[in-house]
Amino acid sequence: MKENLKKEIENTAKGALEASRVLANLPSAVKDAVLKDMAAALLKNKADILKANRKDIAASRTKPKAFIDRLALDEERIKQMAEGLLNVAKLKDPVGELIRGWDTANGLHIQKVRSPIGVIAIIYESRPNVTADCAGLCLKSGNSVILRGGSESINSNLAIYKALNSAIEKHGLPSGLINLIKTTDRKAVDVLLKLNNYIDLVIPRGGEELIKKVVSSSRIPVIKHYKGICHVYVDEWADLNMAEKICFNAKVQRPGVCNAMESMLVHRDAAVRFLPGMLKKFKEAGVEIRGCPLTRKIAKWARRATEKDYRTEYLDLILSVKIVEGIDEAIAHINNYGSHHSDSIVTENYDEALKFLKRVDSACVYLNASTRFTDGNQFGMGAEIGISTDKLHARGPMALEELTTYKYMVLGSGQVRQ
Amino acid sequence: MKENLKKEIENTAKGALEASRVLANLPSAVKDAVLKDMAAALLKNKADILKANRKDIAASRTKPKAFIDRLALDEERIKQMAEGLLNVAKLKDPVGELIRGWDTANGLHIQKVRSPIGVIAIIYESRPNVTADCAGLCLKSGNSVILRGGSESINSNLAIYKALNSAIEKHGLPSGLINLIKTTDRKAVDVLLKLNNYIDLVIPRGGEELIKKVVSSSRIPVIKHYKGICHVYVDEWADLNMAEKICFNAKVQRPGVCNAMESMLVHRDAAVRFLPGMLKKFKEAGVEIRGCPLTRKIAKWARRATEKDYRTEYLDLILSVKIVEGIDEAIAHINNYGSHHSDSIVTENYDEALKFLKRVDSACVYLNASTRFTDGNQFGMGAEIGISTDKLHARGPMALEELTTYKYMVLGSGQVRQ
Repeated sequence: MKENLKKEIENTAKGALEASRVLANLPSAVKDAVLKDMAAALLKNKADILKANRKDIAASRTKPKAFIDRLALDEERIKQMAEGLLNVAKLKDPVGELIRGWDTANGLHIQKVRSPIGVIAIIYESRPNVTADCAGLCLKSGNSVILRGGSESINSNLAIYKALNSAIEKHGLPSGLINLIKTTDRKAVDVLLKLNNYIDLVIPRGGEELIKKVVSSSRIPVIKHYKGICHVYVDEWADLNMAEKICFNAKVQRPGVCNAMESMLVHRDAAVRFLPGMLKKFKEAGVEIRGCPLTRKIAKWARRATEKDYRTEYLDLILSVKIVEGIDEAIAHINNYGSHHSDSIVTENYDEALKFLKRVDSACVYLNASTRFTDGNQFGMGAEIGISTDKLHARGPMALEELTTYKYMVLGSGQVRQ
Repeated sequence: MKENLKKEIENTAKGALEASRVLANLPSAVKDAVLKDMAAALLKNKADILKANRKDIAASRTKPKAFIDRLALDEERIKQMAEGLLNVAKLKDPVGELIRGWDTANGLHIQKVRSPIGVIAIIYESRPNVTADCAGLCLKSGNSVILRGGSESINSNLAIYKALNSAIEKHGLPSGLINLIKTTDRKAVDVLLKLNNYIDLVIPRGGEELIKKVVSSSRIPVIKHYKGICHVYVDEWADLNMAEKICFNAKVQRPGVCNAMESMLVHRDAAVRFLPGMLKKFKEAGVEIRGCPLTRKIAKWARRATEKDYRTEYLDLILSVKIVEGIDEAIAHINNYGSHHSDSIVTENYDEALKFLKRVDSACVYLNASTRFTDGNQFGMGAEIGISTDKLHARGPMALEELTTYKYMVLGSGQVRQ
């Protein structure tokens, strides 16, 4: 039985690699036509997809409400998936872009050309929309994809996969372009993560535990989308009205996402002017405050912040607050306690701003703006496969370009090495 | 004892991380001054370095000649190390480069800025020159480095490290910028590879076994410099004089390096015209030929090539030769048996050339040139830390730019997310 599983997964990966050779050289027009047909197939098969989804929901009825909300599909959500694919079809094809070209002294012409990575495995939780989103982004960027979704969404994923695959078949393309692991056996992931001969990249999308598990057992390079412990630092030279708006937005507008603020740092000299009004506003919005001793002198009702608080991604209406001596302490705190995701300074002082932007070691550093803008769509990338907290290959919002690599094409006229 | 080792390595990594924060924001002029002083310190301390090297050589006298050759230093080699550092000082600083900048509809100005990676660990064999080369490249690209060389070169490395570090100290910079693992205990590497909280990237430089070991036990992202099984394909439309020169150069000019040709593919219709002269030339140069059955009809003296031959990096005057039906078979063979390093086509037919360049899935694909040009210096990068056979982050020759990542600096004026 285990040998069968191993062989099955390996065959899937082999098929994905073979298909990737075809996909790498497919004209943009063909890829876009397939994407449009994938969107149409989702709409055409929506009854089947909804039926499968109801089956998944019925089997998950003991799960928390937020879990069910992520799992559940309706007509509107299927429409959104289809629109997502149509949007990807409209984006510029990254494959084949000439990144740079130059001539060497001996007359070689070197071209650095953007190319697909090859085969990408995506391991995600029970969110069926990820199935369509990732299939679309990988197809457009010229990569075969192996999808492994959470077991609770297996029926929904199978139905979505069937629809997507009908579009692939319609164009006479190899079915290995898009692959779904059809078993819910957990061992399948272990097998998958050892297939570094076939798979070029693994992207785990989910909680910290999932990512850690993937990193510890993968022989394939992993791009990680860890948590976001994002900060806003209110400087002594901040416009405090602006600071209030930015901090409120960063915490309250959508607290459950990775680019929301989890920790607010305030310069000592701004604290007395800024914190009373700000904390009152947070309190009114139902935000629980966990403050440092100095903060609690201003807001006696606040809970005490522990070391652990400063390292916690609440994803909820909870905020740690710390009063700092100055910008150096703020930068050191962020680099030490943060998750190198998104951090913002509010200040009208250009020197302070530059210092913060240069020294904070995060994917996205902001001046006078909410951390909530860290997002492929907000950045103008037109799509997003996630937000990398890695420094290698891709950092911050990841879209089509981040799903590519490059190759050097060297054009000669008989050159040999001296 | 093992706990002590663990603590010592962890302290080294912590120091490297702290130093990297200083280094990331050091002006180019300071880095270049340090590099020049590092070069001067090597020359000033050459007697000590040579003395330490003689100790290493004495302890390795039972090792093969090629091993000793890589380990041995003399005045000339120390001078080359110093010159290497001076050359790195002359290169353009990659840190701070504005890769791209754009405005969003809501008035955010986004800048994608090149930044150091942070802390890089380099694990290499007993080649003392790597100590100075890697220290220089990492310093210039703004990264702290942790060096772990082969145990047979420990005395040489300690002496070189001492010289380099004197230049760091002279400028009042933290000694954590350049770190050498001073123990030869093999467990040190295992400890190092688990420190993903401090180290951002591991680059193993050495044989396949070393790299595989690092990949299988590292929790830190690894950029791999695997073997080079490089091909030249002589097409039916090749200029056969040019083909002969290119193939001879690719095999014979320096057979022991990764960009040398290990396998020659010849179109069926060119074989009778091309192979007799070519193989005679190889024979005269002492190249052992391992041919497919068709090749052996032309050169009866050739050994028979096995499946294993096509997957072997000889690094020696040995060549496998295969006659193929056409370009499709050549491309499939290269993608299947090759190591995705460097492959060349010799042809005067533009369609064939383009097909080859697009479809061969290698870091460097050549038209009418020797594979021997895959090299940072030959590509005009001014330096080289290795040649990546990975597709993630860096592919092909790696120099300063490949030792960097990027960050997004987002300049706002109070923007909040709607």
